[in-house]
Amino acid sequence: MKTDIEIAQEAVMEPIGKVAEKIGIGEDDLELYGKYKAKLSNELIKRVEERPDGKLVLMTAINPTPAGEGKTTTSIGLAQAFCKMGKKAILALREPSLGPCFGIKGGAAGGGYSQVVPMEDLNLHFTGDFHAITSANNLLAAMLDNHIQQGNELGIDPRQVVWKRCLDMNDRVLRNIVVGLGSKMDGMVREDHFVITVASEIMAVLCLADDMEDLKRRLGRMIVAYSFEGKPVTADDLHATGAMAALLKDALKPNLVQTLEHTPAIVHGGPFANIAHGCNSVRATKTAMKLADITITEAGFGADLGAEKFFDIKCRMAGLKPDAVVLVATVRALKYNGGVAKADLAQENLDAVKAGIVNLEKHIENLQKFGVPVVVTLNAFATDTQAELDYVEQFCKERGCEFAISEVWEKGGEGGIALAEKVLDALENRESNFKVLYDDELSLKEKIETIAKEIYGADGVTYANAANKELKRIEDLGMGDFPVCMAKTQYSLSDDQHKLGRPSGFSINVREVYVNAGAGFVVVVTGAIMTMPGLPKQPAANNIDVNEEGAITGLF
Amino acid sequence: MKTDIEIAQEAVMEPIGKVAEKIGIGEDDLELYGKYKAKLSNELIKRVEERPDGKLVLMTAINPTPAGEGKTTTSIGLAQAFCKMGKKAILALREPSLGPCFGIKGGAAGGGYSQVVPMEDLNLHFTGDFHAITSANNLLAAMLDNHIQQGNELGIDPRQVVWKRCLDMNDRVLRNIVVGLGSKMDGMVREDHFVITVASEIMAVLCLADDMEDLKRRLGRMIVAYSFEGKPVTADDLHATGAMAALLKDALKPNLVQTLEHTPAIVHGGPFANIAHGCNSVRATKTAMKLADITITEAGFGADLGAEKFFDIKCRMAGLKPDAVVLVATVRALKYNGGVAKADLAQENLDAVKAGIVNLEKHIENLQKFGVPVVVTLNAFATDTQAELDYVEQFCKERGCEFAISEVWEKGGEGGIALAEKVLDALENRESNFKVLYDDELSLKEKIETIAKEIYGADGVTYANAANKELKRIEDLGMGDFPVCMAKTQYSLSDDQHKLGRPSGFSINVREVYVNAGAGFVVVVTGAIMTMPGLPKQPAANNIDVNEEGAITGLF
Repeated sequence: MKTDIEIAQEAVMEPIGKVAEKIGIGEDDLELYGKYKAKLSNELIKRVEERPDGKLVLMTAINPTPAGEGKTTTSIGLAQAFCKMGKKAILALREPSLGPCFGIKGGAAGGGYSQVVPMEDLNLHFTGDFHAITSANNLLAAMLDNHIQQGNELGIDPRQVVWKRCLDMNDRVLRNIVVGLGSKMDGMVREDHFVITVASEIMAVLCLADDMEDLKRRLGRMIVAYSFEGKPVTADDLHATGAMAALLKDALKPNLVQTLEHTPAIVHGGPFANIAHGCNSVRATKTAMKLADITITEAGFGADLGAEKFFDIKCRMAGLKPDAVVLVATVRALKYNGGVAKADLAQENLDAVKAGIVNLEKHIENLQKFGVPVVVTLNAFATDTQAELDYVEQFCKERGCEFAISEVWEKGGEGGIALAEKVLDALENRESNFKVLYDDELSLKEKIETIAKEIYGADGVTYANAANKELKRIEDLGMGDFPVCMAKTQYSLSDDQHKLGRPSGFSINVREVYVNAGAGFVVVVTGAIMTMPGLPKQPAANNIDVNEEGAITGLF
Repeated sequence: MKTDIEIAQEAVMEPIGKVAEKIGIGEDDLELYGKYKAKLSNELIKRVEERPDGKLVLMTAINPTPAGEGKTTTSIGLAQAFCKMGKKAILALREPSLGPCFGIKGGAAGGGYSQVVPMEDLNLHFTGDFHAITSANNLLAAMLDNHIQQGNELGIDPRQVVWKRCLDMNDRVLRNIVVGLGSKMDGMVREDHFVITVASEIMAVLCLADDMEDLKRRLGRMIVAYSFEGKPVTADDLHATGAMAALLKDALKPNLVQTLEHTPAIVHGGPFANIAHGCNSVRATKTAMKLADITITEAGFGADLGAEKFFDIKCRMAGLKPDAVVLVATVRALKYNGGVAKADLAQENLDAVKAGIVNLEKHIENLQKFGVPVVVTLNAFATDTQAELDYVEQFCKERGCEFAISEVWEKGGEGGIALAEKVLDALENRESNFKVLYDDELSLKEKIETIAKEIYGADGVTYANAANKELKRIEDLGMGDFPVCMAKTQYSLSDDQHKLGRPSGFSINVREVYVNAGAGFVVVVTGAIMTMPGLPKQPAANNIDVNEEGAITGLF
C-alpha cells in the first residue's frame, strides 16, 4: 500500500491559476507562491463581499481515539465528491503546524486519495503564515521586556506578565524558563514560557479578524501583562500594534491550494482547539462561501470541543449560519469507546460497537441542540463488517440523522458520493435553524456550566480559587460578555481523558481561567493542557530527508 | 526630500518574469513569490553550471562610522549604471535581517534611487529563508535537549552544549536564559542562549553550500555539544541532518528581485560579518556570474573584516577569483576618522580629511595584498567641497587606484556611470592576480597573526587561556586547516572601537575561540561581540504601521 506522501508526490497538480479559474478567480487576484500555492488578494475578498453566500457544511467527529477518525480526509473527500457530481464546492481548512511534524504525528493534509497538495509544503513552511505569527508574537514579547528594561513607565509587574514567547517547534525545555540573566544590559530577570505558535493568541486573532482594521483592533487590545496596580497592559499600550500588523499583512490573506482531484481548497490559519477555538480563519470561510455553492469546513478535535467552539465562538463572532454538519466516526473508534483494546479493533465485535456508540449518540444529541441538520458518516475500514455498519446506520436513522459510508481514503471523491448525496439532501430539504448554545448576557460561570451540562453531560462545575478570582477580574474588566473557550481533554466528553463512551456522574473542574481580549474569548482550562509539546524518544525528524531534487521522504 | 520607503513605494516595478528575461531566465525556472519576487530553480542553477564565468566585482568600504558610507547603495547604483551603459550586469547581495528593522536601523536594501525592491518585503519576511533557518536551528536544539531528556545515549555534557537557539528578533532577555525548569517531563535544566538568526551557524552553512549534498554534509558535521568524555557531538549524531535539510530545501534557492531601475538582483543569505563571514550565498554569486557579464557583490562591515573574509573564506572555499574591488568612502567618514565630531561633518575641513585618510590608505594597502585591482569611490554628499574631493582623488591615484565620485543615492544609475567606467577600465585593462592572504597549512595561530599584522596593522596577538585551550582542541580534532573568521569590532582596524584612523602599536586580544565545523571555519573572538541585539528605548517598531491596502509606513 502506498503511503500518503507517495500518493501525494505522484499526483499531477494543476497550476494553481487553473484551479482558481474554476471558482472565477483570475490571475490578477492571485499572489503566487511557486506554481501550486497562492494567496488571495485583498481586492478579491472585498469585491466578492456583496455576493450571496453559498451553503456552509461543518465537518466534525466523535471524540478522537488512537484508532483514528479521518475528519480532514473526509472533508477533502466530500468536497471532491461534490465536484465529481458537478457541484461547485470548495474546502476551507486549517493550516497544519510545523513543529508536530517532527514529533509523533505526520502531517495534517488529509490522507490516501483525499489529500490537499502540495502536502510537503503545507506541512513545512507553506506560505509563511505561521512564521509571521511567530515573529509578531515574539516582537510583542521583546517590546514588553524592553519596556521593563528601559524604565518601565507603565509599571508592568514582572510577576504578572501573561504574554508568552512562541516557536513552531515541539520543544519541551522551553515550557518553563528564566530569561534576562547576565548583566544589567541583558534585561530584567523573570520567569517566562514558550508555547507552540498555534497556541499564540495572535493565531486566534488572525483567524477571527474580518480585515486589517479588525486585526489591528484585536491585536491592540491583547493583554500582555498587569501593572503593579493590577491594571491590564495591552499591545496598544506598548505601541506594538502597527508593527505586528505589518508583519501579518500577508498572513492575513487566505491561501489557495488544491486537492488530489484539483478541488479548490482555501487553507488558512490553525489555532489550537483546546486553549483556542480550533477553526480556520473567518476570512477563509467567508470568502469560500462567496466563491462556491458549497463550502466544507472543519473544526478541531471532537464535536464537544471543536463543533461547540465553531458554533459558539466563530459563528457567533462572524455571523455565520451553518447549513449542515457532518459527524465522522469509525467502527473501530466506536469499538474502542466500547472498551476494546487498540490491538483487537480489527475483529468483528457488535457488542463493543453497541457499547461504544453512546459516544456517537451524545454528539448527535449535542449537535442537534444547535439546530443544524446532522449527517453521520462512517469512515470505512476494510475490517468493518456489514453487521457493524448496519447497526450504526440504523442507530443514526432512529435519531433523525442521515447516514452514509465514506470511502474517500481509498477512492477519493468517488468514495464520497454516497455521503455527498446525503449532505446535498440535507442542504436542499432540511432547514437549518442554527442558534448558539448560550447568550452573551449570561455570566461567565453560567456559560461554562451550560456547556458542561448540555454538551459534556456533567453534573456541575467546580472552580479552583485562582479561577474564581480571575473570573471576577475578567467581569470587572467588562469582558463578561465574551464567549468562553473550553480547554479540555479531547479524548473524553468529561475532563478525564480515560472516561470513554458517554460518561455521567462527573463534574468539570476548572483549574485556571484567563482572557484573550484580542481574540475576544475567555479561556477556561480544565485539567493539564499542554501548550508546548515535546518530542518523543524517536522523533519523526530522525527519518525525514530530502534529496538533491528537493523531494522529501519520511514526512509521514 | 523623499524617504527611502517613499521612493521605493512610488517605484513601478516590472513583473519579475520580465526582469528574469533580461538574463535569459524563462518562467519555468522561476518559482514566484508574488509578482515581484522569485526563487531560481535548482534545474536552472545546474543547467548554467558549465557556462563561462562573468567578471566578479567586490564592493567593500573603509571602517564604518556614524557618518554612513553607503556600500549597498553604491553596489546597486553601480549595477544600475552598468545596465544604463548597455552592459549585462547583475547584483549578488545579502538578505536583510528582520529583527533589527524593529530596533534602530531601518532596512538594508540600499537607499535613495539605488534600492532593491520590493523593499518592505525584503526587510520583512521576504521569501522566508531566514524563517527556515530559524526553524532548522531550533529543531536541532530541540532534538539535542530531547536526546538528553530521553536517556542521553551519546553522553552529552549539559555544561558543554555549544548549540544555541535563535530568533530573528532583537530580544536581549534571551541572551542568557535557563531552560528545562518545571517537572521531570519538562526537560533537563541547563543554561542556554538565543542568538539572532543571522548568527546561526546554519546561516553560514547555507551561504557556503554548493548544493543540497554539500549543505547536508555541512549541516551534519556541525558540532552541537561535547560529551562527558570531551568528544564532539554533531548534528549527524542526533540524526537531525535530513530534517534540517528538508526545512532548508527552498531556502537554498537564490532569490531574484530587481532594483528601482529593473536591474536584476540575486539576494540570498546574510550571515553576520563578525562571528561569520558576512557574504551572500556562494550559490547566488556563482549563479550570478553564469547569468551576467559583470556581477557586483558586497561584503559586510569594512574591508578589514568583510573583504578579508570574502577573500579568505568565501573565495577560498568556493574557488572564486574576484576581478576588481571597489572601496567606498565618504568625505564625511574620512573627516570623522580625522577626529571631527559627527555634528561638525558638514563643514569643509581639509586638515581633517588629510588626518583621516590614513584609514582609507590602510584599506587600499590591504586590498592590494590580495592582488585585485582597487577602485576607490567617494559616495558624494552635498556638503563635500571640491578641494576635499580633489585631495582624495589625488591621494588614491598616487597609490595606483582608479578613483570616481558616485552620486547613486541621488541619481540612481546615472550617478554611477563615472564609477562604472573606472571599474570597467579595471576589468578590461588591469589583471587580477587574486590570492588568499594565508595558506591552509599554517597553524591557526599563524593565520590569526597574519591577519592581525598584515590587515589590522597590529604588533601581535595575545590569547586568553580559554582561547589557547580551544585552539589546541580544534587542531587535535583535525580542523587546524580551516580558515579563521575574525570577530572584531567593525569600527576600528584594531580591536578597540575607539581607535579610529590607522591605529598602530596595539595588540589583538583573542578572548574566545570556537569552531564552526559545518561552515568550515574557526571563529576567533576579540572583544565583546553581541550576537543578540537589544531594542533601544524608542524602538523603530513604535512607528511602523500598515493600512487596509497593505501599504507599510515607518519602516525607515
